[in-house]
Amino acid sequence: MNTLKTQLAELQELTTDTYGKDFLLTWEKTDAEIRALLLVAECLSEMHQARKPFRVFETGLAVSIFRDKSTRTRFSFASAVNALGLGLSELDEEKSQLAHGETVRETANMISFLTEVIGIRDDMYLGEGNNYMREVAHAVQEGFKKGVLHQRPCVINLQCDVDHPTQVLADLLHLKRHFGSLEKLKGKKIAMTWAYSPSYGKPLSVPQGVIELMTRFGMEVTLAFPEGYGLIPDVVKLAQALSRKSGGKFEIVASMEEAFSQADVVYPKSWAPYQVMERRTPLLHQGDKDGLKLLEKECLANNARFKGWECDERKMKLTKGGKALYMHCLPADISGVSCAQGEVSKAVFEQYRLATYREASFKPFVIAAMILMARLKDPVAVLRKLMAAEVSR
Amino acid sequence: MNTLKTQLAELQELTTDTYGKDFLLTWEKTDAEIRALLLVAECLSEMHQARKPFRVFETGLAVSIFRDKSTRTRFSFASAVNALGLGLSELDEEKSQLAHGETVRETANMISFLTEVIGIRDDMYLGEGNNYMREVAHAVQEGFKKGVLHQRPCVINLQCDVDHPTQVLADLLHLKRHFGSLEKLKGKKIAMTWAYSPSYGKPLSVPQGVIELMTRFGMEVTLAFPEGYGLIPDVVKLAQALSRKSGGKFEIVASMEEAFSQADVVYPKSWAPYQVMERRTPLLHQGDKDGLKLLEKECLANNARFKGWECDERKMKLTKGGKALYMHCLPADISGVSCAQGEVSKAVFEQYRLATYREASFKPFVIAAMILMARLKDPVAVLRKLMAAEVSR
Amino acid sequence: MNTLKTQLAELQELTTDTYGKDFLLTWEKTDAEIRALLLVAECLSEMHQARKPFRVFETGLAVSIFRDKSTRTRFSFASAVNALGLGLSELDEEKSQLAHGETVRETANMISFLTEVIGIRDDMYLGEGNNYMREVAHAVQEGFKKGVLHQRPCVINLQCDVDHPTQVLADLLHLKRHFGSLEKLKGKKIAMTWAYSPSYGKPLSVPQGVIELMTRFGMEVTLAFPEGYGLIPDVVKLAQALSRKSGGKFEIVASMEEAFSQADVVYPKSWAPYQVMERRTPLLHQGDKDGLKLLEKECLANNARFKGWECDERKMKLTKGGKALYMHCLPADISGVSCAQGEVSKAVFEQYRLATYREASFKPFVIAAMILMARLKDPVAVLRKLMAAEVSR
Repeated sequence: MNTLKTQLAELQELTTDTYGKDFLLTWEKTDAEIRALLLVAECLSEMHQARKPFRVFETGLAVSIFRDKSTRTRFSFASAVNALGLGLSELDEEKSQLAHGETVRETANMISFLTEVIGIRDDMYLGEGNNYMREVAHAVQEGFKKGVLHQRPCVINLQCDVDHPTQVLADLLHLKRHFGSLEKLKGKKIAMTWAYSPSYGKPLSVPQGVIELMTRFGMEVTLAFPEGYGLIPDVVKLAQALSRKSGGKFEIVASMEEAFSQADVVYPKSWAPYQVMERRTPLLHQGDKDGLKLLEKECLANNARFKGWECDERKMKLTKGGKALYMHCLPADISGVSCAQGEVSKAVFEQYRLATYREASFKPFVIAAMILMARLKDPVAVLRKLMAAEVSR
Repeated sequence: MNTLKTQLAELQELTTDTYGKDFLLTWEKTDAEIRALLLVAECLSEMHQARKPFRVFETGLAVSIFRDKSTRTRFSFASAVNALGLGLSELDEEKSQLAHGETVRETANMISFLTEVIGIRDDMYLGEGNNYMREVAHAVQEGFKKGVLHQRPCVINLQCDVDHPTQVLADLLHLKRHFGSLEKLKGKKIAMTWAYSPSYGKPLSVPQGVIELMTRFGMEVTLAFPEGYGLIPDVVKLAQALSRKSGGKFEIVASMEEAFSQADVVYPKSWAPYQVMERRTPLLHQGDKDGLKLLEKECLANNARFKGWECDERKMKLTKGGKALYMHCLPADISGVSCAQGEVSKAVFEQYRLATYREASFKPFVIAAMILMARLKDPVAVLRKLMAAEVSR
Repeated sequence: MNTLKTQLAELQELTTDTYGKDFLLTWEKTDAEIRALLLVAECLSEMHQARKPFRVFETGLAVSIFRDKSTRTRFSFASAVNALGLGLSELDEEKSQLAHGETVRETANMISFLTEVIGIRDDMYLGEGNNYMREVAHAVQEGFKKGVLHQRPCVINLQCDVDHPTQVLADLLHLKRHFGSLEKLKGKKIAMTWAYSPSYGKPLSVPQGVIELMTRFGMEVTLAFPEGYGLIPDVVKLAQALSRKSGGKFEIVASMEEAFSQADVVYPKSWAPYQVMERRTPLLHQGDKDGLKLLEKECLANNARFKGWECDERKMKLTKGGKALYMHCLPADISGVSCAQGEVSKAVFEQYRLATYREASFKPFVIAAMILMARLKDPVAVLRKLMAAEVSR
């Protein structure tokens, strides 16, 4: 528990303003807030390992809204809220009648009377997911101000069209532990690269979240993708600005090989081009199945031109000392395992498989830390009290 | 917390017999029991606002059975049972094999071994929903008597074919708070009127529950609907009897305008005629999709004759001082918002939107009060203890 | 609470090695472990009856994976984990992307970061269900060893292709209570017989689990089925060996009448022949609907030759004194009630209906006992402490 005390002391020094706030985009949080969040997540993880409970709510609901399939984030959220003492209710839109417009405002209040936190995944519609979360946040803010709600639940982004905060913060914590500290990330090269996948339409949120967050901590971020597979232009511009501010580096290259060259970390992952996502949104809205099929066919044909974008042993040899850390948000498309040819070769994945599991293992604690910092006025005092308590899970 | 003490003192004076009993119809409860239930709900709401937990169960299950879509009641039930310390398990009939007949008796016991409360919504089948709840109640009663169950869970009506107790009690509590006391409801005019909706087949439970409950507290209840849109005749007769007993008034008129005239409260809401619901039941049982479509077509055509039954600013001007309280159980069909033309104009709804949210906000506390009064021998003593405790959520 | 003290004293005498272990097959557990498990289940049941909570976890998740429909086991698991203080998360494979192969290993870890127990039902595929559970167990074992998981959740078989431990242990506890003790089961005759059902494809797990478990406690187990309706040959061989060891008896006969003759207990239940289940597995894998329909048609035609295999009053008269205990895992196919002709006549079932409910009532406590013995180093000490506590549910 000695590291815990050090972490708490470090935490106490940081100035944060997260009480009562949502977590919708990593780049809306200050560096100090990101640092604090990682420290809280580490405390919770160590307490869990020591079988010390960190239940801070006697009762209360956490609501999750998943507008896309999910296993990892679903269970991470479920684990986190349970560990904090909250009960979980999923809003199943098939069993309800949630829709856009007027009813978002209404439903947000109807599910919030005794609710402390609302977690939302909405990553299918470019230009809409994050906005939907903001609509929900505004609605509960209004409800709270106007006496409808006794408390104002915080909204947490469980992946949207632009960012995936819980994932990339777990990634950052993984890097912090791997290299020893956030300071040691300075000057380390991370290759965030597109990779080939037989499926299509994966969100842009992970690569976007990674380039925003890692540039802030002084990493040398290299983004690589085939022609036509760009990210949202505004997000790329922001990464450039953030890297300038932190004294890091941000560059875009046109091949996986170039990106991997002398990299300390590689993060090869498929995504759908920004322009495709833009064309997809109206088709999804219109429920135009034929249009969606045509678009998919066109994209898969285009994808097929880039089957060489696979993370294999040959390319890994280009990295620093041939032993960069391989990262993935999972599930990966593994050549010869989950598909004929995919994002990563079987040999590379197997070598780093358990490392990717550990990367994922931080997510429940990151989510719990987000909730704790949003719902408690003095998280440090509460953590101190929890650590002192003579209870065991 | 001063009001809390007054409420508890008032509560102590009331003679109630709710321990171990179900809540299946409001009119099976005495006036004193209804008064007590509202007082308990108010206590719980105030405790929640003060962040005082009211967990009374260490462990135990609450089971919900939803045979129709639901968001508001689903989350109200989830919130209430969580706040009391129970875990929620939904009986999903698709994942199970529940059926009528022998198996209701059996399933009721199979889900009840460690269960404190069963909440049921069954509002699709006229003449059956409430009966199904009674079947479940009888089955667990038998199981308890014959040593199958260690405790006898209480059954709570979360909306049936004849009544919607959790909704109309939240409505009554809303009125109590709006006018200051139940006593002040005497002589107040409430217009429970049919309203036009582009959908069809909404249950009769809300208007029926409203006319039964509000007549009991001496209100002047005016029911209005177009020709052919009557409620269940026996329920209407009961409302007449109840109003005579309470010294209130109950009348039926043929236009929204007449009902609104000098009203203190208006509750305009669509429902399907009693006779249509009767014809629908066998069609639903037979899974006769063509028959159901034909019936829907016929009804929508008939509905279309009454598009004038919309709560708009012009009609609101007819109410007392032009500023009656507008009520709705939500979601409302709002003209120009959720449909081209519906139950209420956009302007009227927007004016009362937050008031309808507050109306809904009482439901979790009403449900928690129902459970508390059904499962605890001495609710007053328990509430006193909870209030004295130095804990915080 | 006097019986509780006796039970605890008896429990203390038994040597068990269940801490940190899974529960995948009854025959992997020693007789002492089975005895201990029943004693713990009885303690928990008595504590529940006395409204004493037995919450042993402050927080933590229980995950269930149901690959087949379930009501009884689903609610038993939900009740058990709630009573122990765990939160329940169901892994819904439609909302996730679980598949065989690589991803079992991965998903098992992804759902386990804060998980204490994983309950699995996988009874559709002969030769695979139990193996799947072992895959999950190996995966979390690896995750724990390699520092991915802080704790290693235990895996509990909620019915597989070969055994149904939670059911048959509830059955054994029912027999223990019925006859007074496990010792009194010696020499008692139980008829585990096939019975006719209009449906087809019921798992072999119950009859197989029953013959394995009851032979171990010295019962005279008679298995009966029509030609071609045999169980897995290896399981039958094991039952023979177990009965020799315990000094009991195991025989196979060809008619329900012969099996019922002088029986103390009868357990008539439909199952699909072993050979049919073998043919069904590849068809299910291929999603070969036509092949499955053809197989079903063939089997139902074959089944129809054995409509005489119904447990009726005439056959019950053949049992000891005409009053053997009738058992069933529920739901039973009851002639004239849930089907035209089925496993049991209406008259026989009605006579024993409440007894079968009581039989089922042990299942939540059996599951809770499995978890308690797998997760606590010293269950006796914990039970003593719980009993001494002055709390009430």
